[in-house]
Amino acid sequence: MSIAKVAIIGAGHIGASITRAAAEKLPGVSVTLYDQSEAVRTRAREIKLGTIADNPQDAVRDADLVILCVPVGAMGAAYESVKDALKPGAILSDVGSVKGAVIEAIKPRADIFFVPGHPLAGTEQSGPDAGLAHLFENRWMIVTPLDDPRTEYQAAVEQLTQFWRALGARTDTMAPARHDTVLAVVSHLPHLIAYNIVAMAEDLEAVNEHEVVKYSASGFRDFTRIAASDPIMWRDVFLNNKEAVLEMLGFFTEGL
Amino acid sequence: MSIAKVAIIGAGHIGASITRAAAEKLPGVSVTLYDQSEAVRTRAREIKLGTIADNPQDAVRDADLVILCVPVGAMGAAYESVKDALKPGAILSDVGSVKGAVIEAIKPRADIFFVPGHPLAGTEQSGPDAGLAHLFENRWMIVTPLDDPRTEYQAAVEQLTQFWRALGARTDTMAPARHDTVLAVVSHLPHLIAYNIVAMAEDLEAVNEHEVVKYSASGFRDFTRIAASDPIMWRDVFLNNKEAVLEMLGFFTEGL
Repeated sequence: MSIAKVAIIGAGHIGASITRAAAEKLPGVSVTLYDQSEAVRTRAREIKLGTIADNPQDAVRDADLVILCVPVGAMGAAYESVKDALKPGAILSDVGSVKGAVIEAIKPRADIFFVPGHPLAGTEQSGPDAGLAHLFENRWMIVTPLDDPRTEYQAAVEQLTQFWRALGARTDTMAPARHDTVLAVVSHLPHLIAYNIVAMAEDLEAVNEHEVVKYSASGFRDFTRIAASDPIMWRDVFLNNKEAVLEMLGFFTEGL
Repeated sequence: MSIAKVAIIGAGHIGASITRAAAEKLPGVSVTLYDQSEAVRTRAREIKLGTIADNPQDAVRDADLVILCVPVGAMGAAYESVKDALKPGAILSDVGSVKGAVIEAIKPRADIFFVPGHPLAGTEQSGPDAGLAHLFENRWMIVTPLDDPRTEYQAAVEQLTQFWRALGARTDTMAPARHDTVLAVVSHLPHLIAYNIVAMAEDLEAVNEHEVVKYSASGFRDFTRIAASDPIMWRDVFLNNKEAVLEMLGFFTEGL
């Protein structure tokens, strides 16, 4: 693997976990992070989460691999913030739970290689303190390459795949549209349903919250765990995979 | 506690677990079981699950406490099968997940004490081999007494409560109708939704089952676990708590 320097844009749960995993499993690789929140940058420095840059351009300047670790709806802006500073030949990737919308939002420079991806990992935690070196072990990383015939592009896909394998992930390759359909079923719809049932229970007048919590082991608890995930991230997922999620929601409602 | 002999009608997961728990925690209490399936009775004998009676009357004849451990829709028939053999003064109880419909189905003899209840415990396993002595430890047992002013009835409620505490359960008392509303939210609706999403995923042409299983850690897996419960038991729950479940389903669908 010829990746020596990695830049992470967004020092949340996933960005911090990539940093921790790389520090443990790829000691020869240096990681620089940037987060648009000054509070997050300060906290990331306090907990010694790699090198923290003061602006996105400085973070990516010499990076062989740049990974955007922001909510799906912020991917386009995150790319714009680093675009002009990317090293020619760099690999650009992301970790968004939706691929079609991210590919739509990012029009990569001709001299870089944009290889979208999605690690199927994450807990209900968020923020830089939630960086877990073992988060990706034996979890799936789905690489969703663009339709790019360049030989160097295929090499970039291979490099990215090797990077994630080194972090402990199992890797798969899938077309972006197929990814979005499959994830609508196995992930997005379950989360939408879980958020909805938890919100419904909170609003009910017939049952008080105390009772719901007290007896939640009877099935409800699995939903509350799922619905504890970051709501902004998930709002973005639903909005950005609207078509597939609504299609699956249609099948679901019909079944009900 | 003056309960010396217990009869269990239905040697499935819950009936077998009560038997195992009583054997471990109440060594002075004898348990006799009956199951309408000959295969289950044979298996129960093989694994030495208490005393197995050949007919329901023999099982209950001298019992101080009779617990019906059959699906909600079978409670009425189970009661009819033992009614004439019950000892005067016996406590009759059940473990159904719905209380209103069970109370509707059972018109108790005037000389016994019918105290319905519902232990909020159970795994996705079923059958006599799934008897777990520790199943009820620190789980809630909800006792839903009838509106019966007799002093002896209150004593029967107290006896049943003590029995379940001895098995390790925490006990609560609730009106039957309130129980059915609360359980519709924390248990019945979550199960209905889980069954529905799993069935939907199986029917989808856009996504194959292999993919659903492979990537199920992304949220779907929590639903498959819930939906692995005994479908006959749950069909009975939905049919017999139809009103509350449909009301909650209405709120849920509105939210979606």
